[in-house]
Amino acid sequence: MRQEQKEITVMTSGPGLYEFSDAARSFTHEAGLSMGQLTAYCRHTSASLVIQENADPDVQRDLLAFFNRLVPDGDALFVHTMEGPDDMPAHVKSALTQTSITIPIVRSALALGTWQGLYLFEHRRKPHARNIVLHALGE
Amino acid sequence: MRQEQKEITVMTSGPGLYEFSDAARSFTHEAGLSMGQLTAYCRHTSASLVIQENADPDVQRDLLAFFNRLVPDGDALFVHTMEGPDDMPAHVKSALTQTSITIPIVRSALALGTWQGLYLFEHRRKPHARNIVLHALGE
Amino acid sequence: MRQEQKEITVMTSGPGLYEFSDAARSFTHEAGLSMGQLTAYCRHTSASLVIQENADPDVQRDLLAFFNRLVPDGDALFVHTMEGPDDMPAHVKSALTQTSITIPIVRSALALGTWQGLYLFEHRRKPHARNIVLHALGE
Repeated sequence: MRQEQKEITVMTSGPGLYEFSDAARSFTHEAGLSMGQLTAYCRHTSASLVIQENADPDVQRDLLAFFNRLVPDGDALFVHTMEGPDDMPAHVKSALTQTSITIPIVRSALALGTWQGLYLFEHRRKPHARNIVLHALGE
Repeated sequence: MRQEQKEITVMTSGPGLYEFSDAARSFTHEAGLSMGQLTAYCRHTSASLVIQENADPDVQRDLLAFFNRLVPDGDALFVHTMEGPDDMPAHVKSALTQTSITIPIVRSALALGTWQGLYLFEHRRKPHARNIVLHALGE
Repeated sequence: MRQEQKEITVMTSGPGLYEFSDAARSFTHEAGLSMGQLTAYCRHTSASLVIQENADPDVQRDLLAFFNRLVPDGDALFVHTMEGPDDMPAHVKSALTQTSITIPIVRSALALGTWQGLYLFEHRRKPHARNIVLHALGE
């Protein structure tokens, strides 16, 4: 049993889904495991992880529209507003999605389904550099 | 340290929770690990995983009612509608729940709490065959 | 490759976020792994896990306010009410957050980001003793 780790950075420019499936696949390939698991871990509380359909771009547009309606920027409910109207909504959206996702490695490949992509979900308006730890374990 | 993998299929017939705790327990037993972890991974973007109470069936009914109210089929917000009024809501419900869940194996058994069941959460109306990868790791 | 497990108990006194980052760090330190992963697993269906900002206490206040507005106690939608008006909302809030979280261990430390804390999210009003299994794996 072996393990490998790597920290990658995803540059973001506003709210949206930023796919890093290819980076995760490359890392899995480099790790050289035929059976095992990959964990992706997001080191932030105003961005998160999500697995979503990667075929029709409208899915990403609709997902954003839903989260923005559910947790609107500038919601009068929030007290924590000093860092901007999009800060507390970003924390809530992160809580509603994932900080870590574990994907099995089967026959040397990530077990992502046909339509599944692995995304960083950016919730802040300003550009950010987001750090994700990839950890592969297996043999 | 050893590991085992198995892909199981859950047949669904409309929105609802489909328990596969027994399949996960059987696989854990077959893997023969006294200490370790089990990861369940759902290979779809319109069905997901959730751990919920398995005692009163009303809990499942209420959970569905909540998600249907929060993300109604045919919501005018959505542009991605070609695959039906329940397609985009299915993606959103998947994002709001889990694609992967990791459960420790303690003294040869899954560490599920007394009232916890492991469920596939189907979000589409039509029947589907849903694939879940089980991955056990430990010794 | 080695592994260690420990069950910890978090005492709660009403809805809120109860941080156990220090307990997770101590356990990781005791396990003595330089590279690996820590999984935290919550054995309940009316309390859950979440990673959130641990700097400004208002973030926790706002997060609670949001979840209480989204899933209000005594919601007329729910049938499962025998265990109290806060019971079914607790199950829903658990489904919307996490039951298990996996964090990489990098250079002998949890890869929590600068502002990330690891919390038990209590959803019930009455005091509870909540059991969390910690599982460290690596070398």
